[in-house]
Amino acid sequence: MHIGLFDSGVGGLTVLKELRRHLPKANFTYLGDTARLPYGNKAPETLRKYTQENIDFLDQQAVDVIVIACHSASSIALGMTASEEGTPIFNVITPSCEQAVQTTKNGVIGVMATKATTRSQVYSNFINDLQEDLEVISQACPLLVPLVEEGLMEDEVTEFILKRYLKPLATADTLILGCTHYPILKPQIEALCGAGTTLIDPAESVAQRLEKHPHVNQGSGRLEIYLTDHAPHFLEHAEALLGGLHQAAFLFPNP
Amino acid sequence: MHIGLFDSGVGGLTVLKELRRHLPKANFTYLGDTARLPYGNKAPETLRKYTQENIDFLDQQAVDVIVIACHSASSIALGMTASEEGTPIFNVITPSCEQAVQTTKNGVIGVMATKATTRSQVYSNFINDLQEDLEVISQACPLLVPLVEEGLMEDEVTEFILKRYLKPLATADTLILGCTHYPILKPQIEALCGAGTTLIDPAESVAQRLEKHPHVNQGSGRLEIYLTDHAPHFLEHAEALLGGLHQAAFLFPNP
Repeated sequence: MHIGLFDSGVGGLTVLKELRRHLPKANFTYLGDTARLPYGNKAPETLRKYTQENIDFLDQQAVDVIVIACHSASSIALGMTASEEGTPIFNVITPSCEQAVQTTKNGVIGVMATKATTRSQVYSNFINDLQEDLEVISQACPLLVPLVEEGLMEDEVTEFILKRYLKPLATADTLILGCTHYPILKPQIEALCGAGTTLIDPAESVAQRLEKHPHVNQGSGRLEIYLTDHAPHFLEHAEALLGGLHQAAFLFPNP
Repeated sequence: MHIGLFDSGVGGLTVLKELRRHLPKANFTYLGDTARLPYGNKAPETLRKYTQENIDFLDQQAVDVIVIACHSASSIALGMTASEEGTPIFNVITPSCEQAVQTTKNGVIGVMATKATTRSQVYSNFINDLQEDLEVISQACPLLVPLVEEGLMEDEVTEFILKRYLKPLATADTLILGCTHYPILKPQIEALCGAGTTLIDPAESVAQRLEKHPHVNQGSGRLEIYLTDHAPHFLEHAEALLGGLHQAAFLFPNP
């Protein structure tokens, strides 16, 4: 089984990590569109064009399944269930919303996301499409990505900022970590929320879907990473997160 | 007089603001390469290509002078003093370094900058090229841009982070604000450093150079802004910073 996934940069590596943990035999091709990151502040038409180009590129690699490992790109591709070549496409928003709807008991779902994702209301709209009577509280958490990228997960500043972001979400019993970087802060968020709140990691929701694929146990665990620009420190990030990339091949095409 | 300047996004607007304050009669053309921001994490070859394209675009607008209003792009174009068309090019690094060298009394210059700029050692190398016996302390301040972009200038978190960044710079009597966003925090940095430290705003250093231009008083104060992508909130940023854009023309070409 060959899974292709793409993101604008390092963020999607957390999705890759989670997928590899669940599907250790699958082969993976990761495309990081580092030349055009970040996606969060791009116009929808631009993002649609980039998303299509990335999907076409992964199709050329003959993948069996495509995962859009980026919330911004996912938000404009919610309706895309297959590529022009017929390859099934998964995004990181649909499965996590469905899981959140099944999980909540008090009917209040919280969504932590970037400013762009929050502004787009993609989560709240999609959740209310699934079930109208649920309350969705969205909280933009713009400082979390830079704090994670600075490695300040255990820092008092991060705890202070997290408390601020979590306060309006206090009534939610289910919390979607709606940005690829946020699962890295899962222990800290869990500690602040307490046992009464269920955290939903969208990567895990996608992984649970892919586990049902008939060829899930076929493959050699191979990983190929493609970047559109040789981004400094991408490899460091990747190695730190994925724990040794001795099986990885790095290529720098210009898709 | 027609001044063209470019940056990857909103950052260069602080440079534009400072230049307009000093040169109220000059006409300005601002190019924000929003489709390809940020520049800080791009590979040098990529950045060189983008810089050249932006310079070519401004040359097509028949500007008299080009200002590279971006520290990352400036760092790879230090030696560029004129375009292929012969238009003089100013960057934001050279003038601020020269001013810092003239200003320091104790021979210790501090440089606050992004991670990429700090890693490139462009400031310390250039300052020591100017005067070998000066000590340059560089401090990467990666959280300041997101904090400013969140409007948290007066927030206790920003003060806390600033104190942390300023600590290693304590012995410097001259401090270069080596990122376009940092001058927005000038009052806060000044308050924490005290009167013994001189802050150097690179935009002001460039403005002082341009004031010497013979045609500085010719023009109508016209401003045209070009963006390579219709970035959400760019206009809000621009209006908040420049205080009303009733003279501005906005165009969205694809240079």
